[in-house]
Amino acid sequence: MIDFNLMIPDFRDIENAYQLIKNHINRTPVFSSSSINSILGCHTWFKCENFQKVGAFKFRGATHSILKLKPDEAANGVITHSSGNHAAALSLAAAVRGIPAYIIMPENAPGIKKKAVAGYGGQITFCKPTQKAREETMLKIKAETNATFIHPYDSFNVICGQGTASLELLQEHPDLDIVIAPVGGGGLLSGTAAYIKGKNPKIKVYGAEPQNADDAYRSLIDKKIYPSVNPQTIADGLLTSLSPLTFSTLLQHCDGILTVSESSIIKAMRMVWERMKIIIEPSSAVPVAAILEHGEKFRNKKVGVIISGGNVDLDHLPWQE
Amino acid sequence: MIDFNLMIPDFRDIENAYQLIKNHINRTPVFSSSSINSILGCHTWFKCENFQKVGAFKFRGATHSILKLKPDEAANGVITHSSGNHAAALSLAAAVRGIPAYIIMPENAPGIKKKAVAGYGGQITFCKPTQKAREETMLKIKAETNATFIHPYDSFNVICGQGTASLELLQEHPDLDIVIAPVGGGGLLSGTAAYIKGKNPKIKVYGAEPQNADDAYRSLIDKKIYPSVNPQTIADGLLTSLSPLTFSTLLQHCDGILTVSESSIIKAMRMVWERMKIIIEPSSAVPVAAILEHGEKFRNKKVGVIISGGNVDLDHLPWQE
Repeated sequence: MIDFNLMIPDFRDIENAYQLIKNHINRTPVFSSSSINSILGCHTWFKCENFQKVGAFKFRGATHSILKLKPDEAANGVITHSSGNHAAALSLAAAVRGIPAYIIMPENAPGIKKKAVAGYGGQITFCKPTQKAREETMLKIKAETNATFIHPYDSFNVICGQGTASLELLQEHPDLDIVIAPVGGGGLLSGTAAYIKGKNPKIKVYGAEPQNADDAYRSLIDKKIYPSVNPQTIADGLLTSLSPLTFSTLLQHCDGILTVSESSIIKAMRMVWERMKIIIEPSSAVPVAAILEHGEKFRNKKVGVIISGGNVDLDHLPWQE
Repeated sequence: MIDFNLMIPDFRDIENAYQLIKNHINRTPVFSSSSINSILGCHTWFKCENFQKVGAFKFRGATHSILKLKPDEAANGVITHSSGNHAAALSLAAAVRGIPAYIIMPENAPGIKKKAVAGYGGQITFCKPTQKAREETMLKIKAETNATFIHPYDSFNVICGQGTASLELLQEHPDLDIVIAPVGGGGLLSGTAAYIKGKNPKIKVYGAEPQNADDAYRSLIDKKIYPSVNPQTIADGLLTSLSPLTFSTLLQHCDGILTVSESSIIKAMRMVWERMKIIIEPSSAVPVAAILEHGEKFRNKKVGVIISGGNVDLDHLPWQE
């Protein structure tokens, strides 16, 4: 159920976030492709967060969270447990403010991710690859450093930051019929829905999720948070469960979740690479796959698609497996 | 030696070409990446012709050539023998004007290329995979149709079209120190050099060429056209030899050719994919490789890089071989 004590972001919170972060982030381009449009049967505009710093929208929320810290809080740094784009984003955003970022990573995280976080200046502490070890290690480092924990998505400031991608999109294309974004933990989709619905409730906002990790779809239908249990999908940015804050925000603002097959994700990803010549990660292909699979909802509509990131292991592409 | 009867394009010819084609082409974005700049040790701006229609700069020259045809010439269509980006570009440019494009292709051309040309509406005639068969087949179809032959690069109008990429680049970044473009047949480099040197002779213009296909390098040094004989390079857009017109244009306007190893091309291509999240073909990575290999020429300079195209077979990436 919705926790009414939670503070759900308003579109004005996202406008304020934008004023704070806009000089620190890339204003990413919005791309359109006539060949993609003719395949999808609608008019699409891709908000290309693959061109964001660290290659993903996560830099918006991380930057906003860090800029909101008071000087004495900031001095102790920030901490998170993550092995993905949030860890890289937090490391770089902390470096920009000149404060430490403590990153707890499972010791079996891919070398490429360790390298990325270290490259952005994150101070990594490795732990056993269990949720318990992650949290214990984090509490230990947090006690030692007094660093502020920045959750990857269960955070008002993070969600407000992620919503600024939609703010930029609507600045350029205010007359969209639909906006669609991928959903994992729900930070991006919550920011998207809160902003879009606040600015123009006539625009539909959909989430897109792999069928093989459809916890958000089921959670919003049954109005209770289902945990994501060991999901098997190539969309490796969408493995996590909704949190109390993202769940409540989506219940209030999101028009529904569309689920897609793994084969559609791979097809959509390859199509975007081939037709648009941009590198998107599998998670970013999920909304494109949703338009392919649920064409009737989009026919001839004007659709904004949030491309969440472009961090891909070029040695392991999904169509080669 | 320079043939003084040849009409070498002037920067004003390229300005005129731009007025003619600008509503038919994509104005491609200019991208910059701080991480690429720190690796290369200079400030680079990438003119992204991988985002041009058909995925390559070739659409500029093809469109210009077709728009310059008189109505009675145009009605008979255009013809070329090519299996690459020029054939696709000519097919689409002809379709836009509503005239036929006859494309002579060797019967062993890759399926992906046949499909691309057919997809843009080109009328393909297959021939045996020899230069003689190509030319004989072309003359036969030309005699039957009275179509106008559009050479991929030994053509004033084609070169003027290709030069418009640099015109757009200089509009946004007039204060460059160097512009670098790949060289195969020399159409792109000729248009680049003719435009840049005409507008601002202080800007250096370099070509970049694979060591394994260094005929342009040798041709400009010895001031005679060396044919490109069975070159072995992954930069499959740069296999051809200079022509009388491109040779003469480059002798007059180009500051030199920088050659690069195959391993540098692969390294540069992968670096651009990973850091900039854009798909560039191996030929486009050659100028980036030249900055890697010849760093001293570029140190701390402001460098425009012409990214020629993004047509890659995603099933066969060079770092997987």
